[in-house]
Amino acid sequence: MNNLEIKKLDYIFKPKNMAIVGVSLINPLFPGNIIYNKNLFEYPVNIYPVNPKGGTLEGNIVYKNLGEIPVDLDLAVLMISAKLVPDELKKCGEFGVKSAIIGSGGFSELGSDGVKLENRLIEISKKYDDLPFMGPNCLGIHSKYCDTFILPSERLATPPSGNVAVISQSGGFLIDQIFSKFHEREIGIFSAANIGNKALINESILLKYYDREPGIDTIVIYNEGFKKNTGKEIIEFAQQSDKDIIIIKGGKSKMGAKAAMSHTASLASNINLISSSFRQAGIIEAISESELVSYTKAISFGLSPLKENKIVILSISGGHGVLAADLAAYYRLNLVEFTDEQKKEMKNKVNPVIASIGSFENPIDLTGSVNDTDIENCLELLLNFDNVEGIVILLVPYVPTISMQIGRRLGNILRTIQNNKPVVAYCPWLKIYGIIINGLELNRTIPVASTIEEAIQMMRGLYLKGLKYKKRKLSKN
Amino acid sequence: MNNLEIKKLDYIFKPKNMAIVGVSLINPLFPGNIIYNKNLFEYPVNIYPVNPKGGTLEGNIVYKNLGEIPVDLDLAVLMISAKLVPDELKKCGEFGVKSAIIGSGGFSELGSDGVKLENRLIEISKKYDDLPFMGPNCLGIHSKYCDTFILPSERLATPPSGNVAVISQSGGFLIDQIFSKFHEREIGIFSAANIGNKALINESILLKYYDREPGIDTIVIYNEGFKKNTGKEIIEFAQQSDKDIIIIKGGKSKMGAKAAMSHTASLASNINLISSSFRQAGIIEAISESELVSYTKAISFGLSPLKENKIVILSISGGHGVLAADLAAYYRLNLVEFTDEQKKEMKNKVNPVIASIGSFENPIDLTGSVNDTDIENCLELLLNFDNVEGIVILLVPYVPTISMQIGRRLGNILRTIQNNKPVVAYCPWLKIYGIIINGLELNRTIPVASTIEEAIQMMRGLYLKGLKYKKRKLSKN
Repeated sequence: MNNLEIKKLDYIFKPKNMAIVGVSLINPLFPGNIIYNKNLFEYPVNIYPVNPKGGTLEGNIVYKNLGEIPVDLDLAVLMISAKLVPDELKKCGEFGVKSAIIGSGGFSELGSDGVKLENRLIEISKKYDDLPFMGPNCLGIHSKYCDTFILPSERLATPPSGNVAVISQSGGFLIDQIFSKFHEREIGIFSAANIGNKALINESILLKYYDREPGIDTIVIYNEGFKKNTGKEIIEFAQQSDKDIIIIKGGKSKMGAKAAMSHTASLASNINLISSSFRQAGIIEAISESELVSYTKAISFGLSPLKENKIVILSISGGHGVLAADLAAYYRLNLVEFTDEQKKEMKNKVNPVIASIGSFENPIDLTGSVNDTDIENCLELLLNFDNVEGIVILLVPYVPTISMQIGRRLGNILRTIQNNKPVVAYCPWLKIYGIIINGLELNRTIPVASTIEEAIQMMRGLYLKGLKYKKRKLSKN
Repeated sequence: MNNLEIKKLDYIFKPKNMAIVGVSLINPLFPGNIIYNKNLFEYPVNIYPVNPKGGTLEGNIVYKNLGEIPVDLDLAVLMISAKLVPDELKKCGEFGVKSAIIGSGGFSELGSDGVKLENRLIEISKKYDDLPFMGPNCLGIHSKYCDTFILPSERLATPPSGNVAVISQSGGFLIDQIFSKFHEREIGIFSAANIGNKALINESILLKYYDREPGIDTIVIYNEGFKKNTGKEIIEFAQQSDKDIIIIKGGKSKMGAKAAMSHTASLASNINLISSSFRQAGIIEAISESELVSYTKAISFGLSPLKENKIVILSISGGHGVLAADLAAYYRLNLVEFTDEQKKEMKNKVNPVIASIGSFENPIDLTGSVNDTDIENCLELLLNFDNVEGIVILLVPYVPTISMQIGRRLGNILRTIQNNKPVVAYCPWLKIYGIIINGLELNRTIPVASTIEEAIQMMRGLYLKGLKYKKRKLSKN
């Protein structure tokens, strides 16, 4: 697909009129019906159901075939048995439907006969001026315009709206790991796609499409193995794009690779070979689901990357400081050593109890005798210390001398000083601390982690992002 | 402390009458007042406040000193400045108060003068027939009888009642990591203690006390370094006790050890030296907070240990199976290889769509075409396969053909077959799936993990528990 054709993907992600081919007139849990009802009741798209028998559904006309639908169709979603798909895709071409999502399974994932059937789809697409289609064997897409995931909305945990786009090889991982975790940690998404067998639209085509979209800053990819040149194309893309790319791979172990083989017939071996090339190109690799969530949150907040790996841990509980220091060592982050002058400055800015019993090494421990002002004063100093590049605040607001305004107060300090030093916070992810968490995250100022490890991972993500900019600068010199 | 004296700790954990020495008549956020109000309004204990000025608090008499209180006191909580503590502890002895918790800081954690002051406390205790006291510099205890944590209940996430006891060197870790996570994952606790400077009551004494309590099955320890012989005593205890001990250590890295030194003056080096002796004694070590939660949940559910390390992963999403297989490899768990006969048996028990598109290797992938009966039938077969020791179910209930009864249904199969094979489940930890999670966990049948990694960690915990029984059996032969 060339650049002009990439634009055609708008028909898939932002359709005005959409057909769903394959609805049941009697079974409300039939996949096509789930998609029909969801879009009818919850999305701005106009949706038209198709079943050769005709009739009505939810009070609307069911059309006997695509050609009868009295509007220009941007998208047809095909939820029919595999052997009927080629003819239906041909009809899309004939009737001028602009794009298709093929949800049906029964293609290359089943072996050689399926491969033949899948190849016919590509031929049909070519014949009709490169008719763009996603799948087969996929959930399709989720955007604010429409949603083709075959899952009822009330069973899903949907993330808030935001600036992250997702490309996932596995529907299960997309729904459960990404949607559910992003919902829980309030990471906003712009759009998401499960590309299934990726006969035509694959990762590199979607990257190019997402690249054109100003509302997207960060792109997350889940992959169990690439086809042909896709890895190389992703690397070329990453080298020139300003969007941040975060990748997580499944099937890395021998056991996992075996499972991936029977899941999507992916050869996992190649993804390890290209791992270091990815790093060279500035692609950030998450090893675990928790790293994925942490990296995505910190980076989608637009925090500045770490270039020199010099961080501070500011805690009000000794035990938390100890754990964070252990984790910083594990994630290879360096703790700044303060000068005697700096320690003195901090001591002078906190209440006398802390000055006598607190610790002003790194991690700093302001102890349970802390109040809002102590944390504010300390943060202000740290932001102005030249040897400090980023700050992890471990905010454990159990003592009543910390007010519910602390989140907003700390955010305001960053807005006042404005020197772009990244600050991330850990705060217990409890309903009772919602005001504090919201205060910190207001205007995407300080991302809040739900574990100490996630907070350290956030800084690790910013360090990995920093490597990209260092490399680009070097290559430009 | 000998065994008879250990019993005296009941005065600390189950007091009937308790004094709080050091309340403010004007500041409701004063530490003593927080403890006073909390116990007055929320616990069955009778509580008596002490302040030399006398007066009233919440409509009750404030006594001018301990001797004026007209009942036999089981416990006095001292929340006064360090230099006043020795005299007050002496008064406890004189007036026949049975035990004390010394919350006040300002002792050995501040250096040599503090050490002297702390040694005086030990002398006083000896003088009064080994008067048991906890601390100084501690939060004290939480049980269903009383709670001396200086934190208002509305700021805490308290775990449900259950069979786990906790000993933590750090108050912050106890409150935030253990209480908050156990609350979130519904791990029930029996009692918890933050032992602070542990001048008298230390880990090994508490272990002996917890050992006598039939309501406690699992003991969790957070530690940044042991004093003198404590490590050895814990090992001796573990070798003979039937309770399961899970330990997590802080300060393992160079940076963390430095932080631990200024937090509790603990030398972290020794905890690594005794790490392998711990393993030998059957103590289960958690490396991360997430391992701690997973191990504690699986073990406190009373699941049988794995002795041969042969597990099955039963999934309904290919991507989930791939990730779980990767994680099983990481946690060194072995996936059973099914015989052709076994695969055939499974295929015969599921619906025809799954029989044709599912995978019956390990991980098993029943695909999104699954319904309740398929999972039930498959689980029943697996429980009866001789080569299967434990089962991880990855239950992703997004498809509407899985009913909200699936949790209860799977639990019932275990109750019917009753062959003690451990089954753990992953289910997205979302409010909408509460019925499924409750159904699985009913009567502590199938513990539910909130991430795929936690589910694998649960099995890892059961494997580590298995090592203990293998060793004991060997040493008895």
